Amino acid sequence: MTEMSKYAIGVDYGTLSGRALLVDCETGEELASSVFNYPHAVMDEELPSGKKLGHDWALQDPGDYLEVLSRTIPDVLEKSHVSPDDIIGIGTDFTACTLIPVKADGTPLCFLDEYKDEPHAYVKLWKHHAAQDKANLLNDIAGKRSEPWLANYGGKISSEWAIPKIWQILDEAPAVYEAADRFVEAADWIIWQLTGTETRNSCTAGYKEMWNKKSGYPTKDFFASLDPRLKNVVDDKLSCDILPLGSKAGEVTAKAAALTGLKAGTAVAVGNVDAHVCVPAVGIDGPGKMLAIMGTSTCHMLMGEKEVQVPGMCGVTEDGILPGYLGYEAGQSCVGDHFAWFIDNCVPASYYGQAEAAGVSIFAYLRKKAEAQRPGESGLLALDWWNGNRSVLVDVDLTGMMLGMTLQTKPEEMYRALIEATAYGTRMIIENYREHGVPVEEFYASGGISQKDPMTMQIYADVLGMPIKIAGSLQGPALGSAIFGAVAAGKEKGGFESIFEGARLLGSVKDTVYNPIPENAAVYDKLFAEYRILHDYFGRGMNDVMKRLKEIKKEM
Amino acid sequence: MTEMSKYAIGVDYGTLSGRALLVDCETGEELASSVFNYPHAVMDEELPSGKKLGHDWALQDPGDYLEVLSRTIPDVLEKSHVSPDDIIGIGTDFTACTLIPVKADGTPLCFLDEYKDEPHAYVKLWKHHAAQDKANLLNDIAGKRSEPWLANYGGKISSEWAIPKIWQILDEAPAVYEAADRFVEAADWIIWQLTGTETRNSCTAGYKEMWNKKSGYPTKDFFASLDPRLKNVVDDKLSCDILPLGSKAGEVTAKAAALTGLKAGTAVAVGNVDAHVCVPAVGIDGPGKMLAIMGTSTCHMLMGEKEVQVPGMCGVTEDGILPGYLGYEAGQSCVGDHFAWFIDNCVPASYYGQAEAAGVSIFAYLRKKAEAQRPGESGLLALDWWNGNRSVLVDVDLTGMMLGMTLQTKPEEMYRALIEATAYGTRMIIENYREHGVPVEEFYASGGISQKDPMTMQIYADVLGMPIKIAGSLQGPALGSAIFGAVAAGKEKGGFESIFEGARLLGSVKDTVYNPIPENAAVYDKLFAEYRILHDYFGRGMNDVMKRLKEIKKEM
Repeated sequence: MTEMSKYAIGVDYGTLSGRALLVDCETGEELASSVFNYPHAVMDEELPSGKKLGHDWALQDPGDYLEVLSRTIPDVLEKSHVSPDDIIGIGTDFTACTLIPVKADGTPLCFLDEYKDEPHAYVKLWKHHAAQDKANLLNDIAGKRSEPWLANYGGKISSEWAIPKIWQILDEAPAVYEAADRFVEAADWIIWQLTGTETRNSCTAGYKEMWNKKSGYPTKDFFASLDPRLKNVVDDKLSCDILPLGSKAGEVTAKAAALTGLKAGTAVAVGNVDAHVCVPAVGIDGPGKMLAIMGTSTCHMLMGEKEVQVPGMCGVTEDGILPGYLGYEAGQSCVGDHFAWFIDNCVPASYYGQAEAAGVSIFAYLRKKAEAQRPGESGLLALDWWNGNRSVLVDVDLTGMMLGMTLQTKPEEMYRALIEATAYGTRMIIENYREHGVPVEEFYASGGISQKDPMTMQIYADVLGMPIKIAGSLQGPALGSAIFGAVAAGKEKGGFESIFEGARLLGSVKDTVYNPIPENAAVYDKLFAEYRILHDYFGRGMNDVMKRLKEIKKEM
Repeated sequence: MTEMSKYAIGVDYGTLSGRALLVDCETGEELASSVFNYPHAVMDEELPSGKKLGHDWALQDPGDYLEVLSRTIPDVLEKSHVSPDDIIGIGTDFTACTLIPVKADGTPLCFLDEYKDEPHAYVKLWKHHAAQDKANLLNDIAGKRSEPWLANYGGKISSEWAIPKIWQILDEAPAVYEAADRFVEAADWIIWQLTGTETRNSCTAGYKEMWNKKSGYPTKDFFASLDPRLKNVVDDKLSCDILPLGSKAGEVTAKAAALTGLKAGTAVAVGNVDAHVCVPAVGIDGPGKMLAIMGTSTCHMLMGEKEVQVPGMCGVTEDGILPGYLGYEAGQSCVGDHFAWFIDNCVPASYYGQAEAAGVSIFAYLRKKAEAQRPGESGLLALDWWNGNRSVLVDVDLTGMMLGMTLQTKPEEMYRALIEATAYGTRMIIENYREHGVPVEEFYASGGISQKDPMTMQIYADVLGMPIKIAGSLQGPALGSAIFGAVAAGKEKGGFESIFEGARLLGSVKDTVYNPIPENAAVYDKLFAEYRILHDYFGRGMNDVMKRLKEIKKEM
């Protein structure tokens, strides 16, 4: 370490805003943070020109990302009174797959006048779902061809990922496809803006672009089988030069220095993804430690030492989370969303009245009632599939189920049953890993629910039968990015030798640990056994009633 | 017919009140009715003396039944301006099994000073459930002994029926058992009060006292196996002299004439049960025509030409509905109760606000939203077991289930799914009959839901694929009783030759018939096939999760 304190900045690009965080590399102190909401937010109905978008579209304007840099970085510098001379590195993380068609110099097509009114020239945000038919066709073709990489993604490519999105552009706007010299993840594009050089990171390449460190991309033959015009999509529009996470992408250019107030030459880490970057922020530095980022949905990050094709996982990517390890990703597509749905649709008027009389929010009132219940006391059991099943079964057509209701069943019992169901869903993911030889020995949680909902966290500890450690920082992604920024700077400049060192020194968890209560865990073992039977019955083809009901629904 | 109009009176004894109806035997015109609420209502906490009752008790005071006679009959005579000379007959119907311990002259033990403070001396109302342990033991013993009559009751005797109730008295108050010369159904006791003679009717004897026209009661050996002191219960306390429905029990005595204002000598029909007596009131005069009495729960009445032991039915009794036919009874223990539970527990505050703004009740508001949906549109499917399953599966430990929920699911969709589930439950009962050789060719409905809820009735028509005829009278039981009264009087006195003639002449349905809409019925055929799979999976032992959850619940 140098004599003077050194600092790093992390910038976290979310769905609606970007946030910068300035961190002391020695103490981990978070000196200042700054948020900027994207002026164009998510464009899902029309372009600024008024041009209408189709169903399931979700676009962004990359100019908003640059404005995050020009606004939040000067702001944290000012607030913290830290000199740009002492900022040794910057790291960033982004939503993914969030894809931009650009010219060879990195200029987004939508910045050019001729494409201002062309929807396909804009950023396709991760939740742009209008390429679902392309994803279906891709999965169908890949399945028939027995493509070996398919199993790395749990057997299914999502419509959110790069190739379906690129294929949609080719199909619906071939001129845009032609005009785009590159298709680049926003995660990498923002690094390009800072360093002046195109780089690609192993995380988005592996999870979203179907790249594999050992075998590369799918073959030209495969891409040609989708559409002959896609045959050379990798050579022409992507990149085979993929950097592992924890690498230095380059240094802040003079132009970027003018934009941000950073010093030219400041180290810049390769791009990263918002969920993955949280892992070092809680101090995870090796395999067997799962991080669950719990919010409206949940992402599960886990590292392993060997590549296993675990059925039903979102993806496995070498160097995908931390360099040198296989990064496994899984997810539950509906967690907090379940609880919000229940509050909106199933809580009787009388409860609102009682909550008001007690001077508490309806959430607090319902949670208090749910907290008073003991495991198994309600006789209820639910399957947490209100928004399909993302991992283990990987089936968007599955739907919710609840059983055990009687005339005495109360709303708070159903509410708790939904919470428990999401915990069983997490346990299914963990057991699925273990059964396929990927150890899960510790459990960490970050995200809103982990910070705000002790009852839910205790239920998770009891259901999983594992202690749960909670992220120490409220700004996990930005902290993770700052750590990567300090790694890019390197030890000599006052940063870290490796991301592992950074994780150990700056990653943190709270003092409060949720430990399983043995008598609760024993009951939940029994209930989970019941969940599992129903999970397999409804989810593995023994009774496809949920899908048949969806078919009937579609017909109506 | 005589020159002058002749009239009959029906008296319907419900759970909380008695109602008399005066009917023109030629035109069917309902000239007057009168209701009297029982002063003691249901005693489920204490006796009038203040003596506390145990859990699940439900008693009544038989003095209230006499007061119904002395108040309502004079009232309908006065309102209608009909002379007692022109009242040719009276019929009554009662809840069952509602059981009274009496002396040899018919005096209830609770009328005697020495028993005023003895709970077991009072009427045990149908919903007195404190003999459940006796019923369990009885079923256990009967099952082990392979008693042949058990199958006539779908394999299970209810705790509501006579023998468990009598056994409870013997066990808990042997002196009351000793002092009681007879145990008599309230249905028969009220006739005894009118005619001065003890008679017993085939309906309660068959459905509630385990009597069979061909084989009589269970053997002394069986009763002794329950408790040696019960060996001669039939000879000592019941009666083997059972009259078929449609018989004349006797004539109004001078004492009863003084009580009621009727003329001594007026014909009196044998006792009857509230649900069964509705059958002729809708004009049903033979086999294959099911009547569903739809309220908080539903009773299904059906006649057949041969005795079939249909698995899962509540009972089959010769002459149990109309003389000469096998009367089949089935039921759904939770129908309107489902909808009330949903309204109480699952309708969000916002809907109450919108209903108020629209100036309609929450029921009407929810129904309007549910009506706008097409079959299958919600993707939801439920099992209607919030209060167990009474028929086909006969299992109180089954619980409710719903599946197909998504984040877009609305309360009105779940509400409609519950209504549909009860319709599927009815269809299961019908198909179960058909599969065992008991035809169901027509469908009639009476009771509150049939009168007030056209949406539900249309759903039933669509699900059953049968037209549904609706009871013409709002006072079905009292009308049915009046018809039986006119049958007891006989043709010469201006009444009817038989109950069949009475049913044809005075029974009525509304002009409105709910006809199945073919495109809805086609969708419901598909949905019912799914219901049936789940019904069997959860209900027939393939996955006893509901019972295991109840076990866990009990342990907590």
